[in-house]
Amino acid sequence: MSAAASNSSKMMTSPGDMFTLENPVFCCYLFWSTVLVVKMLLMSLLTAVQRFRYKIFPNQEDLFFKNLEVQFDDPHVERVRRAHRNDMENILPYFLMSLIYISTNPNADVACILFRVASVARIIHTLVYAVYPVPQPSRILAFATMLLITFYMAAVVALRTLSFI
Amino acid sequence: MSAAASNSSKMMTSPGDMFTLENPVFCCYLFWSTVLVVKMLLMSLLTAVQRFRYKIFPNQEDLFFKNLEVQFDDPHVERVRRAHRNDMENILPYFLMSLIYISTNPNADVACILFRVASVARIIHTLVYAVYPVPQPSRILAFATMLLITFYMAAVVALRTLSFI
Amino acid sequence: MSAAASNSSKMMTSPGDMFTLENPVFCCYLFWSTVLVVKMLLMSLLTAVQRFRYKIFPNQEDLFFKNLEVQFDDPHVERVRRAHRNDMENILPYFLMSLIYISTNPNADVACILFRVASVARIIHTLVYAVYPVPQPSRILAFATMLLITFYMAAVVALRTLSFI
Repeated sequence: MSAAASNSSKMMTSPGDMFTLENPVFCCYLFWSTVLVVKMLLMSLLTAVQRFRYKIFPNQEDLFFKNLEVQFDDPHVERVRRAHRNDMENILPYFLMSLIYISTNPNADVACILFRVASVARIIHTLVYAVYPVPQPSRILAFATMLLITFYMAAVVALRTLSFI
Repeated sequence: MSAAASNSSKMMTSPGDMFTLENPVFCCYLFWSTVLVVKMLLMSLLTAVQRFRYKIFPNQEDLFFKNLEVQFDDPHVERVRRAHRNDMENILPYFLMSLIYISTNPNADVACILFRVASVARIIHTLVYAVYPVPQPSRILAFATMLLITFYMAAVVALRTLSFI
Repeated sequence: MSAAASNSSKMMTSPGDMFTLENPVFCCYLFWSTVLVVKMLLMSLLTAVQRFRYKIFPNQEDLFFKNLEVQFDDPHVERVRRAHRNDMENILPYFLMSLIYISTNPNADVACILFRVASVARIIHTLVYAVYPVPQPSRILAFATMLLITFYMAAVVALRTLSFI
């Protein structure tokens, strides 16, 4: 693979420079982080779909239909919003953690597998939470997968940089 | 411009190193991301202003005035909190997406215009949502501007890194 | 220190490359950001602990015990969730701001002290808000510490990149 070859030649001249397209781990991060960004933004649109379907709007200026009042606490809308909030609580810290994990020059195969598994787990989390609710423990397992991967990366980075406490 | 000159000389020696002050696109990102960070943090202070103005506090230890009880669901406070949450849902993923978009070495003029338009759109979003509510579709248009720009950057990055799926 | 030595030799050859393990400021950022990521993720687990302790679940599929109904607005659960939301509002923008602040090549001692103080302040914020509520102004001071540090970093970055507006 040309990317791997150019990366290994690069490793000899500048071992510290991880955040370039010549690093396959960074490229894998780019792809799967982009997938998760798009997934998160689609939650906003899914919320909007639910708001129009059930005609639930939280602001006076959003009442696009006659005889409506502002309304909160609709279960269909709130379910999507809880899933969206859960995304922010977990995916946003993961974005940073996995990005700085790359700077420790991890094994490329391990790092790429972690990125893929974590990302697919969160897509499943959204499906079983916000799109089509299914019984537990499906959501807990999907949630725990990214959480544990983020904790693993945190352990790697913290041990590597412990002397800078 | 010295920045552009030093950047082009740099391009010949190390094409992959985008995240330095020698890259005008990164500098433009730095400036406008900083503006958006400050704008987001000001939402916390705006919430505090509303809480003191209408004496609405959510915690027992925050009751700075006599004869108050904890209270939720005040429309003035909740409006600012909804705007703040919308910022987190949209600007935080944009921060990552636009940062990694820089690594693809985009056309400098295009990238800088995207950063500027997205940032100004979100400032307008805050003004028409939290500061002085105006009729739709002003808020929807401001919201859609950053959303579409983020989707565009996502498409560029995903196509460039598709082989690392 | 070998890290400092290799960093100073590196400064002569490539002054712009800040995001490597050879830069002590970046290593200090790595350690303390990792601490804050772990702290934030523990808020999810603390919320789960409160939900099981008080048997408050927001989704039909989460009712692990008999004769329960979905329930919201429990003060013990909501307090942790407010602390968690406050983390997202403040720590997530700080993550980006402090990361891009490193690119301006700040004084190493100043930068490392800012990272340490901001991180410890937010740990205190969590303790006095979500774990064991204590009277104000303890929480306001902890909150203000990271906020002011983030504003300082924003000022440094914005002044340095003002010509790219």
